[in-house]
Amino acid sequence: MYMIAGAGLTTHETAMLLLSLGILLGTARLLGETARRLGQPAVLGELLAGILLGPTVLGTISPDLFAWLFTDSHAARIALDGYILISVVLLLLISGLEIELTTAYRQGKAALIIAMTGMLLPFTIGSALGWQFPTAFGPLGSAYQPLAFAIFLGIALSITALPVIAKVLMDLNIFKSDLGMLIMSAAMFNDLAGWLGFAVVMALINPGENGGASIGGTLLLTMGFLAGVMTIGRWLTHRALVFIQAYGSWPGGVIGFVLVVALLCAAATEAIGIHSILGAFFAGIVIGDSKHLRQRTRETIHQFIANIFAPVFFAGIGLTVNFVAAFNPLVVLLAVLVACLGKVAGCYVGSKWAGLGRRDSLAVSSGMLAQGTMGIILGQLALTAELITQELFVAIVFVALLSTVISGPAIQRVLQRGQKRSLGDLLTEDRFVSVMKSLGARAAIRELSSALGPDSPVEADAVFESVWKREQTMRTGLGDGLAIPHARLAGLEKTIVIIGRSPHGVDFDAADGNPAHLICMLLTPLDDQDSQLEVLRLIAECFHDPARRSAALNAGTYTEFLAAIKLPGADSHGGMAHE
Amino acid sequence: MYMIAGAGLTTHETAMLLLSLGILLGTARLLGETARRLGQPAVLGELLAGILLGPTVLGTISPDLFAWLFTDSHAARIALDGYILISVVLLLLISGLEIELTTAYRQGKAALIIAMTGMLLPFTIGSALGWQFPTAFGPLGSAYQPLAFAIFLGIALSITALPVIAKVLMDLNIFKSDLGMLIMSAAMFNDLAGWLGFAVVMALINPGENGGASIGGTLLLTMGFLAGVMTIGRWLTHRALVFIQAYGSWPGGVIGFVLVVALLCAAATEAIGIHSILGAFFAGIVIGDSKHLRQRTRETIHQFIANIFAPVFFAGIGLTVNFVAAFNPLVVLLAVLVACLGKVAGCYVGSKWAGLGRRDSLAVSSGMLAQGTMGIILGQLALTAELITQELFVAIVFVALLSTVISGPAIQRVLQRGQKRSLGDLLTEDRFVSVMKSLGARAAIRELSSALGPDSPVEADAVFESVWKREQTMRTGLGDGLAIPHARLAGLEKTIVIIGRSPHGVDFDAADGNPAHLICMLLTPLDDQDSQLEVLRLIAECFHDPARRSAALNAGTYTEFLAAIKLPGADSHGGMAHE
Repeated sequence: MYMIAGAGLTTHETAMLLLSLGILLGTARLLGETARRLGQPAVLGELLAGILLGPTVLGTISPDLFAWLFTDSHAARIALDGYILISVVLLLLISGLEIELTTAYRQGKAALIIAMTGMLLPFTIGSALGWQFPTAFGPLGSAYQPLAFAIFLGIALSITALPVIAKVLMDLNIFKSDLGMLIMSAAMFNDLAGWLGFAVVMALINPGENGGASIGGTLLLTMGFLAGVMTIGRWLTHRALVFIQAYGSWPGGVIGFVLVVALLCAAATEAIGIHSILGAFFAGIVIGDSKHLRQRTRETIHQFIANIFAPVFFAGIGLTVNFVAAFNPLVVLLAVLVACLGKVAGCYVGSKWAGLGRRDSLAVSSGMLAQGTMGIILGQLALTAELITQELFVAIVFVALLSTVISGPAIQRVLQRGQKRSLGDLLTEDRFVSVMKSLGARAAIRELSSALGPDSPVEADAVFESVWKREQTMRTGLGDGLAIPHARLAGLEKTIVIIGRSPHGVDFDAADGNPAHLICMLLTPLDDQDSQLEVLRLIAECFHDPARRSAALNAGTYTEFLAAIKLPGADSHGGMAHE
Repeated sequence: MYMIAGAGLTTHETAMLLLSLGILLGTARLLGETARRLGQPAVLGELLAGILLGPTVLGTISPDLFAWLFTDSHAARIALDGYILISVVLLLLISGLEIELTTAYRQGKAALIIAMTGMLLPFTIGSALGWQFPTAFGPLGSAYQPLAFAIFLGIALSITALPVIAKVLMDLNIFKSDLGMLIMSAAMFNDLAGWLGFAVVMALINPGENGGASIGGTLLLTMGFLAGVMTIGRWLTHRALVFIQAYGSWPGGVIGFVLVVALLCAAATEAIGIHSILGAFFAGIVIGDSKHLRQRTRETIHQFIANIFAPVFFAGIGLTVNFVAAFNPLVVLLAVLVACLGKVAGCYVGSKWAGLGRRDSLAVSSGMLAQGTMGIILGQLALTAELITQELFVAIVFVALLSTVISGPAIQRVLQRGQKRSLGDLLTEDRFVSVMKSLGARAAIRELSSALGPDSPVEADAVFESVWKREQTMRTGLGDGLAIPHARLAGLEKTIVIIGRSPHGVDFDAADGNPAHLICMLLTPLDDQDSQLEVLRLIAECFHDPARRSAALNAGTYTEFLAAIKLPGADSHGGMAHE
């Protein structure tokens, strides 16, 4: 008889699997969130979690504890590997879902040119160096093959990271602009070309693994698979999605369908001899391309994979490599130079060629720079296949992280746009008056002014005078229990928001006649027109939602208040981009 | 060095893992959706998928194919077992999330009495029979122990299935009624008692497995774990949720936190010597109890686990057992009698005792009958532990399915309430006129009447006369391009809806002056007042949403039209219950 759920795993193995998975996921999520708070992509923290738990740190400090957690139990380790495998397959599924062929196609020639030049330059330099001087990138892998290595190196140094780019553009609020769509489309073409090239690399190093197909045979099978997926597969998917939404449960039916298609395509490409993740990637493209996949379903899939599977994969990478021992500064420097300079120069030339101005060309180049997740996945596969060694892998991880970290600030600088702020970013605990005592508007403004504290760049009295003067020319009660007294002040460098709650209510002369229970005092620099309008709008939007308003009024602590104002409104969606 | 993602699994093993998982999940989802379409719980179809793919059917028809898919590759099988293990852990997590201690507590004594009597009767009979005549339930397991077996049998025959009950009550639209909350609360107490009892069983059969703790030691550790989780754990969870929502990403931060807590608690209970799923269950209770876990987050977690993990677990059961070979009619009959009669009688007595009337008592008894998923999980664990043999396991699965299938119709019959209908249930393809030709209301009504077809119980001419007569007394244009001409007809047994789309527009004299583009003709039986109002309301609600209306007007085929009217509105949520 065939036993499941426990028969393959003893009690001890079960406990170890759950424990190692829990610790891996927990640490990765914690550091991922921390990275995000610091304005960095989550993948940075997730990789760091693996480095901390792996041979680099824990394995050096306490080899016994590391071995107990991650390597002693063979069966638990195989099961963990299986989970990590499914994670990377699903990660490529959502990368594929983000590629919108129709959008990319519509941007047409310009995107194609930029993708081509941006890829060709680092690819040519990378693969020429890899072909001519392979040992410049560290010792050769045990499965080293000149051609496969050269192509791999070219791709690894020229691929972009679609999810990271999407996130950067969204943060700057230019995702839907012409420039944003151009960058996204170019990155999509780049991704597509990169993964197709990688399929060639896999075919070169895996020939004959499954029943003796030659390199040509594997490539032929790959092309057959792609052609089938893009024609019949696409048609069937489209039909199936409509059918499932008409007759199945929602969104469960669709989620199940998407995952099953991804798993089966992954199994197919793995059997062909190119990696399983390629199948999942193309499944994602085909499914994402159908207009019948709804936004809400996309988000549910995205949230789960990005938060439950992806962190385990990235943290898992840290378990495999000692990042200190394998760090070779020369290799890292060479890789960084080729990847970053090559990409920026290539994209700049392409953008100018496509007719863009200097500023836009620079913006495109900075945006396309981010290599992020894709470079790391590629390196991981090559390392596992022993095509490369740890030295080069560490350099690739470094390139990916560095390019990701500088891409955002670079594009921000070029376009001179600030990141979208949220109200929460502007608040601090000491500028939150939980229960105000004042009964009138004048007293209330004085009470909030005095919450500025001693280390404020402006005097409480000066603040009071300015805000009260402004209040007298125009009363700031907005109705619905909200008032936003405000002023622009000389000597202020950045925006200050002080929030007070008045259970009794303060009359700020609102049009609806209701007293204000939430009073947000807003102080902005004198020479900065935009900030005042922007933050006024942020505050008004935030408290427009009745549920959020009432949660904010009833929150017991400052932390609960912060949680309350981040409550999603009826119209809002969860974030889409992975980082 | 320690390799992940592929190093533990060869190319062949990777392909087999993805293929077997894809086929298992795909078949389970397909049959699960089919069961749902037929008004049955999804778990029925999911189990059937496993029976088809397992030794019962596929293994009998083609043992080679079965072995190739599921047992030949040892490493792939261990990885699949790991996935199934994580699935059942997460399944218990969402079961725990559904338990609301505060709600249950508020219902107080009545719920407690019903839970107690409803559990005590089948438990006493079951465990007495199990103690006295263990062989009446098939051959003894290799790890048979009289006391553990008796307690197990009592619990297995007396546990209820909270998610199934929730689904039944929601379908009947009485979930939020007093009676609904009473049934839910009683079921929660029942579940809680059942799982605590099961912890005792696990402690009895696993003593000393981990470092030699005795039965007493295991129970002591269990109580310590529970006390810790319910006090410090609860306090910490509450704090952590607020903190994560204030400073973390949403809903990603919360989803990650919930899963990590579940995995670590599962590892802890597994290490104690009671099963890992108990830890996940209690983690779910503690987390679900916090008012800081938002509805939308709950739903995302629920959707993913119910659609991606749970089906694999239930289908996996079919892979372990030959349901034909192990089917023993006498054992099945005995188990059904004790479980169903005992539960119904016990709950009826308890309800009367708690002061309920006859009809309500019957409704409570029918509702509490459903054993569904919980009984099966329990049986699976006992089978794996070899406390029971396949004969009894098959009987338990049978009890679970039968009680689940009859619970819904029984409560429906007692309360004489119909299931909530959706508009989609009332439509058929031949009563859908994709492009209407008529330009006036009279012609439009005639055109839709003739779509009734030859096998209609009423004549097209008679329908036209009645609807047109009604139309002349009161015009049925509702505005927003929607008109609902209707009539009540003698000789009609059930409601008929005919839908036509007019690109040109037909004037139905709407208050907003706009012509109707969507014309829904509604025919109801003469003696049925309620149906007309109910369906009028359904139609109006459905097309009130502008996005849904426009999607319905632009749908190319009937299937696309159906998918369009199931498009969620801005205010709607995904379904919550698992089945």
